[in-house]
Amino acid sequence: MIYEVDFEPIGRRVAVKPGTDLVEAARQAGVALSSDCGGRGTCGRCRVRLMAGNVSAPTKNELRKLGERSLREGWRLACQTQVESDVKVHLPLESMRGAQRLQLGGIEPQVPVEPIHQAVVVHVKPPDLFDARSDMTRLLHAVQEEAGVDHLGFDLALGRCAAETMRQDDWRVVAWLRDHEVTAVTPVDVVPLGVAVDLGTTKIAMYLVNLISGETLASGGAMNPQISYGEDLMSRIAYSMEDPARAAELSLVVVQAFNRLIAELCAKAKRSPRDIIEMVVVGNTAMHHLFLNLPVEQLGRAPYVAVVGESWDVKARELGLGIAPGAYVHLLPNIAGFVGADHVAMILGAEIHKAKGNVMGLDIGTNTEIVFNHNGQMTSCSCASGPAFEGAHIRDGMRATTGAIERVIWTGSELAITTIDDAPPVGICGSGILDAVAALYRAGVINQAGRFQAGHPLIRGERPNQYVVLAPAERTGHGRDVVITQRDVGEIQLAKGAIRTGIEFLLRHAGLTYHDLDQVIIAGAFGTFVDVESAITIGLLPSLPPERYVQVGNAAGVGAKLALISRRQRAIAADLGHQVGYLELMAQPDFTTVFAEAMLLPELEQV
Amino acid sequence: MIYEVDFEPIGRRVAVKPGTDLVEAARQAGVALSSDCGGRGTCGRCRVRLMAGNVSAPTKNELRKLGERSLREGWRLACQTQVESDVKVHLPLESMRGAQRLQLGGIEPQVPVEPIHQAVVVHVKPPDLFDARSDMTRLLHAVQEEAGVDHLGFDLALGRCAAETMRQDDWRVVAWLRDHEVTAVTPVDVVPLGVAVDLGTTKIAMYLVNLISGETLASGGAMNPQISYGEDLMSRIAYSMEDPARAAELSLVVVQAFNRLIAELCAKAKRSPRDIIEMVVVGNTAMHHLFLNLPVEQLGRAPYVAVVGESWDVKARELGLGIAPGAYVHLLPNIAGFVGADHVAMILGAEIHKAKGNVMGLDIGTNTEIVFNHNGQMTSCSCASGPAFEGAHIRDGMRATTGAIERVIWTGSELAITTIDDAPPVGICGSGILDAVAALYRAGVINQAGRFQAGHPLIRGERPNQYVVLAPAERTGHGRDVVITQRDVGEIQLAKGAIRTGIEFLLRHAGLTYHDLDQVIIAGAFGTFVDVESAITIGLLPSLPPERYVQVGNAAGVGAKLALISRRQRAIAADLGHQVGYLELMAQPDFTTVFAEAMLLPELEQV
Repeated sequence: MIYEVDFEPIGRRVAVKPGTDLVEAARQAGVALSSDCGGRGTCGRCRVRLMAGNVSAPTKNELRKLGERSLREGWRLACQTQVESDVKVHLPLESMRGAQRLQLGGIEPQVPVEPIHQAVVVHVKPPDLFDARSDMTRLLHAVQEEAGVDHLGFDLALGRCAAETMRQDDWRVVAWLRDHEVTAVTPVDVVPLGVAVDLGTTKIAMYLVNLISGETLASGGAMNPQISYGEDLMSRIAYSMEDPARAAELSLVVVQAFNRLIAELCAKAKRSPRDIIEMVVVGNTAMHHLFLNLPVEQLGRAPYVAVVGESWDVKARELGLGIAPGAYVHLLPNIAGFVGADHVAMILGAEIHKAKGNVMGLDIGTNTEIVFNHNGQMTSCSCASGPAFEGAHIRDGMRATTGAIERVIWTGSELAITTIDDAPPVGICGSGILDAVAALYRAGVINQAGRFQAGHPLIRGERPNQYVVLAPAERTGHGRDVVITQRDVGEIQLAKGAIRTGIEFLLRHAGLTYHDLDQVIIAGAFGTFVDVESAITIGLLPSLPPERYVQVGNAAGVGAKLALISRRQRAIAADLGHQVGYLELMAQPDFTTVFAEAMLLPELEQV
Repeated sequence: MIYEVDFEPIGRRVAVKPGTDLVEAARQAGVALSSDCGGRGTCGRCRVRLMAGNVSAPTKNELRKLGERSLREGWRLACQTQVESDVKVHLPLESMRGAQRLQLGGIEPQVPVEPIHQAVVVHVKPPDLFDARSDMTRLLHAVQEEAGVDHLGFDLALGRCAAETMRQDDWRVVAWLRDHEVTAVTPVDVVPLGVAVDLGTTKIAMYLVNLISGETLASGGAMNPQISYGEDLMSRIAYSMEDPARAAELSLVVVQAFNRLIAELCAKAKRSPRDIIEMVVVGNTAMHHLFLNLPVEQLGRAPYVAVVGESWDVKARELGLGIAPGAYVHLLPNIAGFVGADHVAMILGAEIHKAKGNVMGLDIGTNTEIVFNHNGQMTSCSCASGPAFEGAHIRDGMRATTGAIERVIWTGSELAITTIDDAPPVGICGSGILDAVAALYRAGVINQAGRFQAGHPLIRGERPNQYVVLAPAERTGHGRDVVITQRDVGEIQLAKGAIRTGIEFLLRHAGLTYHDLDQVIIAGAFGTFVDVESAITIGLLPSLPPERYVQVGNAAGVGAKLALISRRQRAIAADLGHQVGYLELMAQPDFTTVFAEAMLLPELEQV
């Protein structure tokens, strides 16, 4: 008898004998699980969470290390847990030795800091028997006199805490004025902080920023915990629609992840979360809605409209975020149901709106958004590229963690591979798969239609289960071949075809061809690691001279930071929500014809 | 052995034998407890809550009627519960046959309805593949076009629910615009509701209002449940200061009482609480702060300043109020730490701000606030009149419920009494005590200094425990004399002296004497029932012709209603917060001299 162990969110599966413990299963799957005690259940580092299936009963060591409540919630120590059926196991980021590669950095344009808040240093008149005005009245009078701004207001949370700060600091404080609202009152020596977040479907990237200098004090990332409720957006939308409690839960787990990351970054910077007076969150439209617990039903069916499109301010405490009580979360605008605030942030961060000539920007992912700036006229579209580049639906696919094949080159005589952290190969991540298809094409294994060519010496197995070995069993981390199959090639064709279709329609819409493109900006984690030459070889990207391509890293995160530190940048982002047109590909009459063409590989001579 | 049973919040005490059940104890105390089953524990109507002391174990009938949880919380059936020590018992309003008299009505000035919200009927363009704008963008565009108002916004709660309403109602809805914010979206046939609340230290009065017609659809009252935490403001402030959880609890019990009353009034009017899109709450400054969970420490010590003085809008849901998700609670301004929003509401409701000449307005209570409008110049002060008029600190004092002596007249030969509901006398409520002192004065029992005159035939007992019988044992509800003592007279002198001192200083401040007063407006529950002639006799009120006095009922409740239905009235109230000056009596150099004088009774010839 054989049981299957499915390790999520990295998406590795392995078949093991009954009674195998999860550390061993992970080893066989090539997953690098943390463990410092040699499997005795005493270090507590191999914490995992059982999502489905049966395993052995908890041991005393587990009870000691995890506590009853965690055990009830399914948390276990992998080394103490034996498999007793097919199981699905969630691996938290902290339990993995080589954490998933997270793109935090990006090329940051130099923009001046133009704070959202006006710092108003005031000496409030203390009360006495002859001046019965309330604490807040005296504060607002002082702010009004000092800043020359009237019609001032403040909210319940500030009313609850400002009086204490004023009294403790001998009535000399800084009032942080956001338009006409005092949102925070701090001692005079506190430098206010902001947080920018790129909330991805898979990953969260967060930046803790000094709002006066604009400097990033700390940054960090985490997996999006919603993955436990569904790998892709549609399954999360379906989950959320089942009942309001589930929708609230999907929001809550994100908020909790934010609070944990905030605590972590503040600890690094030796600051308090209470000093965070502003936050900017960007994400695709579904992430935006699930985070805010807005309805998502209409995002799941045509015409796929957002509930909220405009840029928006929401009180952080209403969402459960543990920062300054009066702080706002600012959300950049969503352009359409599948062109969200992260796309706006990417345009801002990569400065695509300022570009001259014909400039295209892509953020490649499960959903790929593309913007085309044609002499100042911007249009965006969304392509359902699917999760193949995340390693899903690929036989040996995996996310970009230790042991993933990230690079494949056809040397002319063989397929040469490189893995992340130079570890023994375990599977293939997105950039590796894309390289592999290009390499197979160059090697003549596949033809323009992506079909395996009969008789090629690299091909193993029989139709329709033919495959090519990228790493033989004796070299891999789990003792089995890592391969790419005919079906894998088909998945990549679907993905790249979808993206190329978007590129083509945006060009057509402007009456241009790809030769007219002055620059193509590739943003995002996948875009950082993708080999442009391979992408051109398989026809994902048009065949342009390499210098016209720029890989900018996490432009969405950079854009979120810009909108955090500069009111001008924030205003530009709000305008982008209106200015950027949206091209619905499904509404184009010859969509299927163009898509079918885009699935093919280009002539090799063209490359 | 004898145990004392203390019935709260009505403040009746009775001494009983061990083993007496609480229905019997109530009977002996003259408290009218509900009971339909003759004490068998089957009707469940005599629900009471044990606050302190020991009683018999719960019976099976109690477990059946109340459930385990209620029993754990101290709830019992009075008929099944025997006294085993001194005990303190809370009587909920619903368990009392003659509920405490609550002043809901008031003389309402006719003001035109000028709604806070603009009703904007819109037909929102439905989305399609060629119009990817978000639901809220399409709504706001429609509102902007229809109403000609721009810079429109909406909050998180509305974003969460408006899309569903629009989709269910085929995109034809009413957007309720409050300045620049859409705070509710309803089907076109829904008439929006508002709620006005007068949150008193002891009682809550609530009005459910049709916001289009201004009509009151239902009104009702309840005890302020904070009474369980302290009868007077200072003890609640002290309780609240002990820890933040207690402060939150004091706020929560009020919110829960509001939610219960809202449900009750909505049931009466056959409407849903979700249709309530606006609420106005008035109360004294401490009630205002405890309700909103603002800090109160500074209200408990000089110079007694409020944290929040200006009129204020707070989202109802932030306080836990179960009305429309986007609804606001509007708070009228507080003038000073002891001159609160209920005083502003009284001025508004009794139209004192519009009065010509010299007009004074009083709301007599544990704390008495007085406003003086001297040719348009308004000044207010606060007098610590104490709880004597609520029946506290008075030997046979009680609140104004069934069996309370509410009227005492010296006929020339005897003291004639009247009780509430014409029930057998049980004790004396505020208006009765005031009458009694005037009657004793007229009868020659007390002199100008308030001292019992040796040898008067009505006097019983020996110094210093002398008393006069108002109702002899054979006529009372509990078989004991109801009396008024020398000490009781002293308590009334303190109370009336405090109020008269306020009147005198307000007149002096304007350089006038009481002869210059054109009108004196007496508001509030006590003010409704007080006998003006008696009040003049004892010198609480100045000796003016009767026609210069007006008793207007619950003017604060009326003012709250005006601020609910009229933006003009609301603006006037906000201005009153700035316009009305505050006179701090404690800061007046000859305060003690004036107070000592005011404690005396005026010459009888003067009256």
